[in-house]
Amino acid sequence: ELQAGVTCSCDYNTSADHRELAHSQQLLTGSIYSPGSPLFLPNGADMMNKLTACLRAHYPLFGFREVITPNIYKRSLWEKSGHWDNYANDMFEVRGRGATGVKENADIGEDEVFGLKPMNCPGHCLLFASQNHSYRDLPIRYADFSSLHRNEISGALTGLTRVRRFHQDDGHIFCRPDQIEAEIKKTMDFIDLVYGDIFGMREYRLVLSTRPAEKYIGSVEDWDRAERQLKSALDSSERDWTLNEGDGAFYGPKIDIILKDAHGKEHQTATVQLDFQLPQRFELKYDAPGKDGEDLSRETPVLIHRAVLGSLERFLALIIEHYNGRYPFWISPRPLKILSVSQKPEELQHIENVAAELAGVQAGKARKIPSRRPNIQVEIDTSARPLGKKIREAKNEGFNFIIVIGPQDAEKGGLVLRMLNQWDEARSLEILGLTLGPDGLAKDPK
Amino acid sequence: ELQAGVTCSCDYNTSADHRELAHSQQLLTGSIYSPGSPLFLPNGADMMNKLTACLRAHYPLFGFREVITPNIYKRSLWEKSGHWDNYANDMFEVRGRGATGVKENADIGEDEVFGLKPMNCPGHCLLFASQNHSYRDLPIRYADFSSLHRNEISGALTGLTRVRRFHQDDGHIFCRPDQIEAEIKKTMDFIDLVYGDIFGMREYRLVLSTRPAEKYIGSVEDWDRAERQLKSALDSSERDWTLNEGDGAFYGPKIDIILKDAHGKEHQTATVQLDFQLPQRFELKYDAPGKDGEDLSRETPVLIHRAVLGSLERFLALIIEHYNGRYPFWISPRPLKILSVSQKPEELQHIENVAAELAGVQAGKARKIPSRRPNIQVEIDTSARPLGKKIREAKNEGFNFIIVIGPQDAEKGGLVLRMLNQWDEARSLEILGLTLGPDGLAKDPK
Ligand SMILES: [Zn+2]
Ligand SMILES: [Zn+2]
Repeated sequence: ELQAGVTCSCDYNTSADHRELAHSQQLLTGSIYSPGSPLFLPNGADMMNKLTACLRAHYPLFGFREVITPNIYKRSLWEKSGHWDNYANDMFEVRGRGATGVKENADIGEDEVFGLKPMNCPGHCLLFASQNHSYRDLPIRYADFSSLHRNEISGALTGLTRVRRFHQDDGHIFCRPDQIEAEIKKTMDFIDLVYGDIFGMREYRLVLSTRPAEKYIGSVEDWDRAERQLKSALDSSERDWTLNEGDGAFYGPKIDIILKDAHGKEHQTATVQLDFQLPQRFELKYDAPGKDGEDLSRETPVLIHRAVLGSLERFLALIIEHYNGRYPFWISPRPLKILSVSQKPEELQHIENVAAELAGVQAGKARKIPSRRPNIQVEIDTSARPLGKKIREAKNEGFNFIIVIGPQDAEKGGLVLRMLNQWDEARSLEILGLTLGPDGLAKDPK
Repeated sequence: ELQAGVTCSCDYNTSADHRELAHSQQLLTGSIYSPGSPLFLPNGADMMNKLTACLRAHYPLFGFREVITPNIYKRSLWEKSGHWDNYANDMFEVRGRGATGVKENADIGEDEVFGLKPMNCPGHCLLFASQNHSYRDLPIRYADFSSLHRNEISGALTGLTRVRRFHQDDGHIFCRPDQIEAEIKKTMDFIDLVYGDIFGMREYRLVLSTRPAEKYIGSVEDWDRAERQLKSALDSSERDWTLNEGDGAFYGPKIDIILKDAHGKEHQTATVQLDFQLPQRFELKYDAPGKDGEDLSRETPVLIHRAVLGSLERFLALIIEHYNGRYPFWISPRPLKILSVSQKPEELQHIENVAAELAGVQAGKARKIPSRRPNIQVEIDTSARPLGKKIREAKNEGFNFIIVIGPQDAEKGGLVLRMLNQWDEARSLEILGLTLGPDGLAKDPK
């Protein structure tokens, strides 16, 4: 397997950091009107959307279903969840007509202020509570790509790594206590698949944090059973893992994933966090068969918070640096550029046809839904400048493929394809070949 | 062509409205903690995501590129855009550490409160302003599916049609004055393709609103030239259009699309709104060749706001009622259910294999990115209840396809497929056939 870390030959100390690359590749910009909220230009939005699409494509495999939940909730919700007491400084408050906050002891929903959500968990608890669940229906797994806001102090804001507005590949699993181990194993498999098979980042280690000595909720038996299941899942992962004894949150043990990037730098990315508390606070229940032949009983599920990539913004910063701005074809914001040789009308027409074919669109035609053709972002340079200059420019811009179309191509229908910056040449050619068809492809060996 | 309006035989007056269907089909729920912000359960999120994916798939055809922009901006931005003076009552204010609003005459970004965005236009103006543009680069077209908030009074909130939090298939085109007609034509083509070819809603009319008699900005010449181009685009659309003389906004003329649903009810959905004002307020410029051989000049672009579906939530309400809860395969939240006949292990294993095949996933395998296989949401009922009961239940739940797998299927690999509720049978079979392969499909004629 091709490992990005192995083939990377750049000198990290002299290579640009993600902020410079993000700027020079026109991925994003910032604004004094919204400090800490990146504005993604088309190239950056393209990469963010591809990260999202990649995770989304694997959700059926792991039983997750996406949900869409509100950005703002009344203060009462954040009191119920505990955020109002413990997290208020890092949250934004939302006011307006009907949410003035002036009325004391108001009913829920009356004049209360809203909080702008810093995380999705309370909303997912509301979703779980809105339906009846039998023990047979569990686990219920919700995924959510919603935007989140945390009020970092302005001095701490930097690039894509410390922001106020971000997105997570967030997920919550509501399961029975006896399902913890299987769910943790599945999550570890998901993490392995995404980091290893998709990004070629196979170097990471796992850290288990267990019950604190003093302050914790739930019974020692619940903790012990959960920790046994976590350890068993970690053992069967065949990865190095270490123990941070007593370092878990007061509401449950967790596993952190520490990733080593192409340059040997470590990043804390994915987290798997057990939670005995939130289901209690939201009085979540499922119907379970009664013990000893009794009637149905109402049991409290365990909640597992999990993110595979974590903050998509932070992960984007990581892969910008990991690939040093030279991305694999599938996630590249500049996969392909077509250059004209001359300005002849038939040549320009042929370029338009090829571009439409590559982009998977046909003028005036609806795409089949669901589509079986990936969209490929195609850029075109038909300016009257010398070809050599246009090629140099396209190379500098970091396009994965450059296609040159001349007058003879317009007649014969052939193309000259130049390969550039490819991490995974075979895979990219396959994708492009499927798109162009096997006969449309004439590869330039240089 | 199959027109949904023609084949619909339901009695609108006795059919449920979208709120009842949305509830009974488990599309969404509401919460007292966030009035006016629907919480989409997996089925509803699935439909919302498919609407988004459908629009997204056609963006390359019409030259739009997606961007991702902040949800909150400092008060100064909303003063610049004019929203603070004209729209403040309908906006939510966002406060927090570093955004207390107490400091008077503060610098931008210092202690100012934020506004939660009700629309994307100002953010897109910031994006445009962040780069240099030549007249050759125009039009620049940004698309954005961001969540938007408008503080509707609580008494006005209802279902998916009057909400506080919603999403638009929002787009902004920055173009030269001479490009207006071509852009309007393209937008009309886009609207026609989506409503007609994808949803089979071919009955809509167009309304042009022109310069108000008294209060307007810009020169009469600019207005006249723009209105001439709008009229010319309308004429070439070959659709009925009417004139609302003097009914345009003070900042530009607009075209409204009034859609007639399957039940003859009219809905205002898409809008195309010209704007001479916002580019001035944001001092947007592009480099244009100087007149009479002079040097480059700096010109102000025209802004076109456009939405094809408009509010995705409102459009979802519309199609729930339009299809009366019986959706075409591609957008159905319940496309397919597999039922077992017995509980034999080899039968259950075969069901799992078929389900994985249909869902386009393979255990432990990364999906190819970009994927050429659509995800199909597959549900399974392997309960020990009688088959007849399971079939009736699946029918009531509105599944498009029901697949029954018995012991003999596990041996031979065949399936019995029952078609249900199909608007477009040929198309659905094609999609399913591509997924299952031509030989895996044995259609039950009943
Ligand atoms: Zn969580
Ligand atoms: Zn707008």
